[in-house]
Amino acid sequence: MRQLKLSKAFTLMESGPVILVTTHNGNKNNIMTISWTMVLDFTSAFAITTGEWNYSFAALRKNKECVIAIPAVDMLDRVVGIGTCSGADTDKFSKFKLTPVHGKVVKAPLIKECMANIECKVIDIIRKHNIVVLKAVAAYVDFARKEKRTVHAVGDGTFIVDGRKMDRRKMMASKVPEGV
Amino acid sequence: MRQLKLSKAFTLMESGPVILVTTHNGNKNNIMTISWTMVLDFTSAFAITTGEWNYSFAALRKNKECVIAIPAVDMLDRVVGIGTCSGADTDKFSKFKLTPVHGKVVKAPLIKECMANIECKVIDIIRKHNIVVLKAVAAYVDFARKEKRTVHAVGDGTFIVDGRKMDRRKMMASKVPEGV
Repeated sequence: MRQLKLSKAFTLMESGPVILVTTHNGNKNNIMTISWTMVLDFTSAFAITTGEWNYSFAALRKNKECVIAIPAVDMLDRVVGIGTCSGADTDKFSKFKLTPVHGKVVKAPLIKECMANIECKVIDIIRKHNIVVLKAVAAYVDFARKEKRTVHAVGDGTFIVDGRKMDRRKMMASKVPEGV
Repeated sequence: MRQLKLSKAFTLMESGPVILVTTHNGNKNNIMTISWTMVLDFTSAFAITTGEWNYSFAALRKNKECVIAIPAVDMLDRVVGIGTCSGADTDKFSKFKLTPVHGKVVKAPLIKECMANIECKVIDIIRKHNIVVLKAVAAYVDFARKEKRTVHAVGDGTFIVDGRKMDRRKMMASKVPEGV
């Protein structure tokens, strides 16, 4: 995994892939699957929707940090598996054969098998809407990974895999920040 | 366009497609392109990131309603065009040859050419993070439209088209609300 400039980290999230969010509660690591996410700005602030119904929420609220790990399509069954069991009674790194890797800033682990990882600090929790606001503090991409297509949850139990890419860089030039 | 049950409207948004948001400021219609969106719950509440920098924001704040119109890939150049000019000096419905259609609840128009439309009320604006919280009040899908693949912005001027669909309904059964 090589570091990615923070000014580009939002490009890992903007297309709306299903993500894994890791936390460390001071005692153990956990992972949750999240599909409800949003980019908030070009400095790489993000919003995710989560709350008490996710076991990870307590660690997120307490330690105010997490890692967004972005899986590729070859991990879909693990992603769904992670999203349908609970860290309350499951060591998900062990069960799903994932490798925790130390980040540079936060205690929550990166996931080695993912195509990208973003270390984040929790900068706000809007309880009324169950929105957690995150700020990226470091980002990494596994450039050597061959399969980089992500998956997008539809919400009905089906998923859409990334298809072909269309380049509109010229038309979009006025809207894309320099260096992205 | 046929009506879609509101309990299914979130499935139009969860995969993270680029959307068009229409508003009516009491005088004229406008459209903006938005990629920073998030599902907030299964009752079809959504968050979008927008603020003063978008001409549409004034109408959104004043009239507290909009329509989320979901374009398909065959509309990509219009979507990019809409996102790179301003309603301050452009009638975007006319310029991009789009057809405004009256909705049932809100004054902002549906867009006939889109694959789906969701009438929304603004239920909160979180100024600190430029988050606008929307609640769907009616949803429609053009089931007869052949091209239904959506596009996902990467943020660097490129876009990812929906690829193949993977079915994990069985594995996801415990997480998908009944009737979705």
